[in-house]
Amino acid sequence: MHLHPLDDLVLDETTKGIPPGASVRLHDVASMGWNILRGDVPLPAAIIRESALDHNSRWMQRFLAKRNAVIAPHVKTTMCPQIMQRQLRDGAWGVTVATLHQMKVCRRFGIDHIVLANQLVGRLELDALVAELNASPDLDFYMLVDSLEGVRLASAAVGRAGPGSRQIQVLVERGYPGGRTGSRNNDMALEVARAARAAPQLRLCGVETFEGLIKPKDGRPAQAVADFVDEIGALYETCAAENLFERAPPIVTAGGSSFYDIVVDRLAGSGAQVMTRSGCYVSHDTGVYEAEQKRILAATGENEGLINALEVWARVQSCPEPGLAILTAGKRDFGTDSGLPVPLFVSRDGASPQALTGCEIFASNDQHAYMRFPATVLVTVGDQIGLGVSHPCTTFDKWQILFLVNDAYDIVGALKTYF
Amino acid sequence: MHLHPLDDLVLDETTKGIPPGASVRLHDVASMGWNILRGDVPLPAAIIRESALDHNSRWMQRFLAKRNAVIAPHVKTTMCPQIMQRQLRDGAWGVTVATLHQMKVCRRFGIDHIVLANQLVGRLELDALVAELNASPDLDFYMLVDSLEGVRLASAAVGRAGPGSRQIQVLVERGYPGGRTGSRNNDMALEVARAARAAPQLRLCGVETFEGLIKPKDGRPAQAVADFVDEIGALYETCAAENLFERAPPIVTAGGSSFYDIVVDRLAGSGAQVMTRSGCYVSHDTGVYEAEQKRILAATGENEGLINALEVWARVQSCPEPGLAILTAGKRDFGTDSGLPVPLFVSRDGASPQALTGCEIFASNDQHAYMRFPATVLVTVGDQIGLGVSHPCTTFDKWQILFLVNDAYDIVGALKTYF
Repeated sequence: MHLHPLDDLVLDETTKGIPPGASVRLHDVASMGWNILRGDVPLPAAIIRESALDHNSRWMQRFLAKRNAVIAPHVKTTMCPQIMQRQLRDGAWGVTVATLHQMKVCRRFGIDHIVLANQLVGRLELDALVAELNASPDLDFYMLVDSLEGVRLASAAVGRAGPGSRQIQVLVERGYPGGRTGSRNNDMALEVARAARAAPQLRLCGVETFEGLIKPKDGRPAQAVADFVDEIGALYETCAAENLFERAPPIVTAGGSSFYDIVVDRLAGSGAQVMTRSGCYVSHDTGVYEAEQKRILAATGENEGLINALEVWARVQSCPEPGLAILTAGKRDFGTDSGLPVPLFVSRDGASPQALTGCEIFASNDQHAYMRFPATVLVTVGDQIGLGVSHPCTTFDKWQILFLVNDAYDIVGALKTYF
Repeated sequence: MHLHPLDDLVLDETTKGIPPGASVRLHDVASMGWNILRGDVPLPAAIIRESALDHNSRWMQRFLAKRNAVIAPHVKTTMCPQIMQRQLRDGAWGVTVATLHQMKVCRRFGIDHIVLANQLVGRLELDALVAELNASPDLDFYMLVDSLEGVRLASAAVGRAGPGSRQIQVLVERGYPGGRTGSRNNDMALEVARAARAAPQLRLCGVETFEGLIKPKDGRPAQAVADFVDEIGALYETCAAENLFERAPPIVTAGGSSFYDIVVDRLAGSGAQVMTRSGCYVSHDTGVYEAEQKRILAATGENEGLINALEVWARVQSCPEPGLAILTAGKRDFGTDSGLPVPLFVSRDGASPQALTGCEIFASNDQHAYMRFPATVLVTVGDQIGLGVSHPCTTFDKWQILFLVNDAYDIVGALKTYF
């Protein structure tokens, strides 16, 4: 891992969160002595609590090591090479990305185990991928194919690179009716797998799916996911029996941030390299994934889980009606697609944060949030409010810089994202 | 206007939209010969059609000039200094911003007529503002106050700067019950106005409101907005009669992107400098603001209106079921808060775009969109789809670079944003 691209990065007030008048190298932010609660940086600002980040990164490694699985964390969540570095240091197999752009960012930071959990189809994108493979003998890269057309397009790109080009390592993608990408049943997936095996430009290395969006009509997603993962296991068995895989062991990869426990449980003993791909575990949240975590802990008997590391801090700008506070953060600062943020803490004049109870964010605009608070809670103009979010992916992407803080909200680093 | 901060900006593949392997100065993108349809840049990519941008910028100036009003476009929409420069060149009075960060970006690009349509309350933020005022004698800046506490905090900041500091020019903000910021009635607003007038650190220059979110129970927003703007007019009259204003003419500013026609109509003849603040007119959209535009044209008798300038282009990555296409763009690439994007065009192998009819985006994930298409429309893996969006603010902020294109989708420039 090299962090060269960040060595020269100078931050100034044109980056949201950096104090007016500052001009500071990214690596020097840690030594500025800034503190969130003291108001040393303008709000809104996004923070990552280092103790929670560390805990989460190590927690997942322990969870998977016990279950004989590995993780290629989906780094679309943070797109932060410094966080990726931490995940790899703690034992992640590699990373997962969604696009060529994300893959190129990871390459720039020296990451050489990458799953692109999509099927590239554009000529420019595929040619760039093949060029990267041929320029980087150590790059261990996998992408998906879910159709004969996908196999044909990928093969053609290798063909255009001429004799001596490396093959593209592919995973056949299985989906489900009504879902996103992926062959809709095992027969269709098998046909794609055979085509990939037969294509000399490709190397079939395993099977992939994404189970995270399964919404069964009976309201029992865990059972539906288990049944679906069993189908993936069966697809793997069939491909193995036909000797289609060109990697030993073949990879079976599934498992977003909601159901990875079920994935590793159902695929245990398959003989495959079981690879999960959660992105959100590393920051966790106070919304959808906090709810899923409760299920996972109950199902697995683990007695400690992930801890929320991500907060957005804003000021109370106005209290125009009793019990109503308008905050200086909005859709530009936090995700709203999986629920509005939750008010966690209040701090006044640099004092330690007090836990908030009974407060609710009930609406947001581009640059504002609307917080309802009970008469028992004293909130006033100028107060600083710490918000927890739901779905970290759509909060990280609102920030080019998040501040890494210790438990006293001292800023101990700046985390650069590449969205 | 100076664009110095962009002169040295070099773009490479770590910025979404820039081709892999490229390393190009922002100002040189225009001479690269790239074309969207030919697949010269990786998708997804966001484009602004220059002819429409030009049309919209000039259209609004003509519309307001006829009605004796000016515009300080809300640049939170684009946060693109190159677009701001165009708006100012075409006659905009200045710009509106939402935060200190946005104001500092505008200052970096030499803009010296700025309305901050919020009440700064943090000590760091207010001190930075006063420092900027004192360092920049030509800066004509206004911010809001909506409470006695706001008046006190702003006054204290000027006090901290010591004798000889410039005053902060303020506008008293009027809101409405159930709304966002702003005093809830004219009596409360008058109290704030008197306090601002009495504060030697402040200079009361006018009245402000934002009417864009009024949602009347009877479903007749235009009438509710007109009634509310009349209250603003009455507040202005009362303040003027009390000789509270310290600017001649005083400013009355209102008017987002939905109801600016009503604002200028109701305030005509007030004697104030009427200032609207639409942000979205400059790109327009194919969603909420397209709908509002129809009302405005019908109400004003104007026979031509704004034209959509903003599109996000993506590829068809997979057609896993009949009539279903999964596109390579998602919540990371377009706004979803005011409705999902609309499929406008399809292009195959570099051919001219064909208009799409009967297609619909019905869901989106972080990196994917789900498009339904009828059997009469031939869509296949690899096709390029041009999407129109609803609510430009939440699409612009997904891109650090948007491509400026001519009507043939040749890339004639790169537009840098500062979110």
